[in-house]
Amino acid sequence: MIRNLTTVRGIKCWGAHIGIKSMRRDLALIYSEVPASAACTFTQNEVVAEPVKLSREHIKSGKAQLIVCNAGNANACTGEQGRLAAEAMAQSAAEELGIEKELVIVASTGLIGEPFPTEDVVSGIRENMAKLSNDAKAGSFAANAILTTDTFAKEGFMDFDLNGTTINIAGISKGSGMIHPNMATMLGFIVCDLAIEPKLLNKAVKECVDLSFNMITVDGDTSTNDMVAVLCNGMAGNEMIKSEKDEGYQLFRNRLEEMMVHLAKLIISDGEGASKFIEYQVVGAPSDKVARTLVREISDSTLVKAAMFGRDPNWGRIVCAAGNAGVPFDYANVDLHLGDNETLIQVLDKGKPADFDRNHVKRLLRESHLRIRLDMNAGDGQGVGWGADLTTDYVMFNSVYTT
Amino acid sequence: MIRNLTTVRGIKCWGAHIGIKSMRRDLALIYSEVPASAACTFTQNEVVAEPVKLSREHIKSGKAQLIVCNAGNANACTGEQGRLAAEAMAQSAAEELGIEKELVIVASTGLIGEPFPTEDVVSGIRENMAKLSNDAKAGSFAANAILTTDTFAKEGFMDFDLNGTTINIAGISKGSGMIHPNMATMLGFIVCDLAIEPKLLNKAVKECVDLSFNMITVDGDTSTNDMVAVLCNGMAGNEMIKSEKDEGYQLFRNRLEEMMVHLAKLIISDGEGASKFIEYQVVGAPSDKVARTLVREISDSTLVKAAMFGRDPNWGRIVCAAGNAGVPFDYANVDLHLGDNETLIQVLDKGKPADFDRNHVKRLLRESHLRIRLDMNAGDGQGVGWGADLTTDYVMFNSVYTT
Repeated sequence: MIRNLTTVRGIKCWGAHIGIKSMRRDLALIYSEVPASAACTFTQNEVVAEPVKLSREHIKSGKAQLIVCNAGNANACTGEQGRLAAEAMAQSAAEELGIEKELVIVASTGLIGEPFPTEDVVSGIRENMAKLSNDAKAGSFAANAILTTDTFAKEGFMDFDLNGTTINIAGISKGSGMIHPNMATMLGFIVCDLAIEPKLLNKAVKECVDLSFNMITVDGDTSTNDMVAVLCNGMAGNEMIKSEKDEGYQLFRNRLEEMMVHLAKLIISDGEGASKFIEYQVVGAPSDKVARTLVREISDSTLVKAAMFGRDPNWGRIVCAAGNAGVPFDYANVDLHLGDNETLIQVLDKGKPADFDRNHVKRLLRESHLRIRLDMNAGDGQGVGWGADLTTDYVMFNSVYTT
Repeated sequence: MIRNLTTVRGIKCWGAHIGIKSMRRDLALIYSEVPASAACTFTQNEVVAEPVKLSREHIKSGKAQLIVCNAGNANACTGEQGRLAAEAMAQSAAEELGIEKELVIVASTGLIGEPFPTEDVVSGIRENMAKLSNDAKAGSFAANAILTTDTFAKEGFMDFDLNGTTINIAGISKGSGMIHPNMATMLGFIVCDLAIEPKLLNKAVKECVDLSFNMITVDGDTSTNDMVAVLCNGMAGNEMIKSEKDEGYQLFRNRLEEMMVHLAKLIISDGEGASKFIEYQVVGAPSDKVARTLVREISDSTLVKAAMFGRDPNWGRIVCAAGNAGVPFDYANVDLHLGDNETLIQVLDKGKPADFDRNHVKRLLRESHLRIRLDMNAGDGQGVGWGADLTTDYVMFNSVYTT
C-alpha cells in the first residue's frame, strides 16, 4: 500500500487534466474534511502572481480547508484579468464544497504573462470537485497535477507517535529549476492530522522553510509564484498543541523539517540540465544565520557550480564566493573539505592548501552526489543547503525557452 | 603617434617578462617623476590579496609615485609569505627609485593560493626599474604586462583644455571574466597631469568607479585582487583644484568617468566565452541608487544572460530578476524595451505585453551589441551597466580551469 497525502486523516485529493497543458494533469485539489490550522510562506519576489496575492489574504485567518493549484499558467503579470481569475478559482471551489472562500488557498505554476484561461479552470474545478477521494491514487494524481517541467512527482510520507496517537504527515512538491525556469515555481503542500494552534503552526512552518526550501538553489532567483502551504486538521485527536513547551510541539516541528528537507532535496534532484547534486555545509560560524548566508552565496556562485560540473577541486572559487557573502569572513581560519557522499578530503587547513591528493579528489568529484564542507572555526553556527551544478546543457536549455 | 600613459607629463612606464608567466610580459611599472595625488578603490570581497592589504595602507597618505603590478600570481591566500612578498615588492621598487616605500602601490593578478615567487619578482623589479621610459611603446608594454587571460590590451587616452592648459589623462585596465575567473581580477590604472588635492581626487574616483567598474558584471563575483588606482601628478601646471566649485573639477570628473566607463566596457568586450555585449539601462527609478541596484540584479541573472545568448525576448525573466533586487518594484508600472545598439522595441507597456513583432526582436537580438531598457515610471533615477551573455562556452571553459 502506498502512503501519501490521502493517508492523512480527513484528507481527500484529486488531480485532473483540464486542458491548460496539452497532455498531463494540470489541476490539483487537496481538501480537508474539516477546517484546518494553516500556515503559508510565499515568494520574496517583488513581482507576485495573483494567486499568491489572494492566498496571502486568505491565510491571515490561520485556517484553510482546500488547496487548489493549476499548472501550465502561472497567472503572473496578468493584471486585473488575473486577479479576477484567482478569485474565481477560490469562489467556484468554495461554492462546490459549501465552504467560505477564505478557506481556499489558490496556487498556480506555469508560464508568466500569458492570459489566464479562467473559464476552463473554473469549469474544471466545478467538474472535478465531486471526484475528491481518499484513495491513494487520488494523492498521486494531485502530486502529478502540480508538475510543469518536472520529470517525476515528488512525494513524502511519515508518521510518528504522540502519546499513543499516530500522527500522519504527508507532502508533495514541485520545481525543476534547471530547465524552463520561468516555470520553475517552487511549490510545497503538506498536510498533517495533528491538532495545533495556527499561530504555533505558523512559527514552525517559517522556521522549517528557512532550513529547507530556502536552502536550495538552482539559479539564485525566486519565482513570482513560490509557495509552501501546510494544513493541520487535528483529526488525529491529540490534545491541541498550544505552546512550544507542549510535548508534541518539538516532535512535530522536527518531523516537519525532515519532510520539507526531503521535498526540497527532491527538487534539486530533478534537473535534466544538472549533472550533480551538491550538499553545502558551513560549520563553525559565528551564528546559524551567517552559516546559511555563506551556504547560499557559495551554492549560488556560477563559478563554483561550473567547477563542480568540471570535477575541478577549485577551492579558490569557493573561498572567493564566501568572501562575497557580505558577512565578515576570515579566510585564514578556514578549513575546507570536498568530496562525495561517502568521503571528504581536506583541501584547506586554516587557510593554507592542505597536502591532498588532487587526483583522489577529482575521482570523488565524478560522483553524482557531492559535498562541500567549510569550517569557519569561529563559533558554533552551522547551516546546510543543496544545489545543482552549472552545465552546458543548462545554458542550452535556458537559452531557447520561449521561442 | 600613439598616445597612451606615457603621453601624460612626467609619466614613465615599463612592462617586462620576468618569468611568472611562461611567455608574456608579467611585470608592469607606472612611475610619476614627482609624487602624485592618488586615490584607489579596492575589492569588496572579504578575502583580500596581500598587495591589496598593503596598498590600502599606503594610499592613506593620498600620495603615490609608482604602481608596480605583476601578473600570473595573485598573491592571494598566501598568508605570511605573501604579506612579506608584497612588502618586498614595494621595498625593492622604492629603493631602486630612491623614494619612500609608502609611495608605492602594489597590485597582483593571477592564480590564487599559489606560493608567490618573491625572489623572481624582486629581482625583476630591480632589473627593470632602470628601463622606465616615456616612450609610447613603454606605455604599451605596461598595458600588456597586466594581462592574464585577456585577449587584448585595454588602453584609453584623452585630453581636455582647462583655461588654456591641456590636461592629459590616460588609463589601462585588465579583466576578462568569461574564462578563468580566478584570474579575472579587474584592474584599472589611470594617470593624469592635473593638479588636484588628494581628498577631492578621492571623491571623484569613488563616484566614477561606482558608475563604471562597479557597473559591469561577468559572473557577479568580485575577486580578491580588484583595484583601481588613479594618480594625478600636477605636472600640467594648472592651479591646484581644491574645491568642487573650482572650474576644473567637474570638467576633470566627467573626463575621469568617461575614461573609466571606456576601460570597463573594454573588459566586458573581452570574453572568449561571451557572444554578446549587453547594455542595461534602468530609468524612471525613485533614485539613481535603486536604478543601479536593478541594473546589477538584472545583469547578474543567469537566466537573463542565457536568454540573451539564445536571442530569446524573454521579458518574464527580466521582470522576475528585477523583482528579486530587494527594492520595491511595481511591475504594473513598467515599460520594457529590447533591441540592439540602433533599435529598441517595446515589449512591455505598463506591465502589459506590448503588441510587438516577436520575429523582429529576435532578429535584433542576433546582433553582438544588445540593449535592455527598463522604465519604472516612478521617478527620475537612472542607471546604466554592462554585461556579457551566458554561453555554453562559458561553462565549458570554467568547468576545467585549474585542472
